[in-house]
Amino acid sequence: MIDAHRQLLLAFATCLLLGLALPAIASDNPFAEEHVVLQISDNDPSKQTLILNVANNLLNHYGPDRVAVEVVAFGPGLRLLFENNTNQDRIQALVDQGVRFSACANTLTGMGRIIGHPPDLNPHAQIVDAGVVRIMELQQQDYSLIKP
Amino acid sequence: MIDAHRQLLLAFATCLLLGLALPAIASDNPFAEEHVVLQISDNDPSKQTLILNVANNLLNHYGPDRVAVEVVAFGPGLRLLFENNTNQDRIQALVDQGVRFSACANTLTGMGRIIGHPPDLNPHAQIVDAGVVRIMELQQQDYSLIKP
Amino acid sequence: MIDAHRQLLLAFATCLLLGLALPAIASDNPFAEEHVVLQISDNDPSKQTLILNVANNLLNHYGPDRVAVEVVAFGPGLRLLFENNTNQDRIQALVDQGVRFSACANTLTGMGRIIGHPPDLNPHAQIVDAGVVRIMELQQQDYSLIKP
Repeated sequence: MIDAHRQLLLAFATCLLLGLALPAIASDNPFAEEHVVLQISDNDPSKQTLILNVANNLLNHYGPDRVAVEVVAFGPGLRLLFENNTNQDRIQALVDQGVRFSACANTLTGMGRIIGHPPDLNPHAQIVDAGVVRIMELQQQDYSLIKP
Repeated sequence: MIDAHRQLLLAFATCLLLGLALPAIASDNPFAEEHVVLQISDNDPSKQTLILNVANNLLNHYGPDRVAVEVVAFGPGLRLLFENNTNQDRIQALVDQGVRFSACANTLTGMGRIIGHPPDLNPHAQIVDAGVVRIMELQQQDYSLIKP
Repeated sequence: MIDAHRQLLLAFATCLLLGLALPAIASDNPFAEEHVVLQISDNDPSKQTLILNVANNLLNHYGPDRVAVEVVAFGPGLRLLFENNTNQDRIQALVDQGVRFSACANTLTGMGRIIGHPPDLNPHAQIVDAGVVRIMELQQQDYSLIKP
């Protein structure tokens, strides 16, 4: 009896320890089996095309229900999420399939200091404190970080 | 008796749980202790030199038998694997030491649409569905992703 | 009695197995809860500004005592650590808050061959065998790799 009890305790402790090593998945998509954070921090406009292509490839390969994709933009890469960016329609199509877009507040503040006001953003952009911190949070939630 | 049985079951369950957390290593190199996927997706030709340097540094540091290296090329980075790329000899020397080179089929199709036919590739390039998906597969097999 | 003994052994074995999966953290900062390696390997000087901004954002967000940051420079990115680089004051301010800067010896040797002597480095730069190997070592110590 007491042994069974001890074994349950041991099993519980084991699961607890294992549980600590298994990060929780925070995602809008409860059925996602793959989780990817795509980073854009380059100035080069061809990187904007490339990151949207990569997001599309992920949706096509896994299916929109089985992959969670978040694009995190910071530094010069924030231009992807400017209101007047030429990729608005592609961003909309990706948002419609569940892709999230995050904009770095630190970059916004820095750019605002230079141009006199923060740039206007795509309405789908969610603002996060710091792009790099958002990326680390997602990595801890088992997201793969890929910078196209 | 019953306790020993229970303990075996518990030990087995523990190993099973631990096993689930330990990814299988798929590699041509059965003695590799380090696994690296090197990504090239930039247009800049100096990145081609750099990624080949990095592959060389890895082989020199760990020894060719103890490190598995795969270069995954997509987007503008696919140029590294064009048949007429100037780095053919260096690629051959790396292949001879076990380095693998993967080319993104999505990029091939896209480039083919623009130039009228898919570009001719280095015969050592293995074609993968999507560069980004190949990278994720390798990450799940415990490869470190590095983009030089 | 014998059961308790067996259970202790099993618990010990479990912890041992778990322990193998938990990498040791090698860091100057014993209270760090977050560990980040920032890679610079680009030629573009705006990347130097960006990587220093990102290091600053990490220190501001987590506090200098709670995050360990190492910048690893290789390839053309080594210029950040040249003695006469214009970012010396910013590097000094980051070093004062515990950020470490590593310079790739392979790159130093290669540049030395071209310009006739190895470039003079920032005195805060610690020289590592190969930038890519240093990054892999840090990843195995649970550092997140981010390339701004």
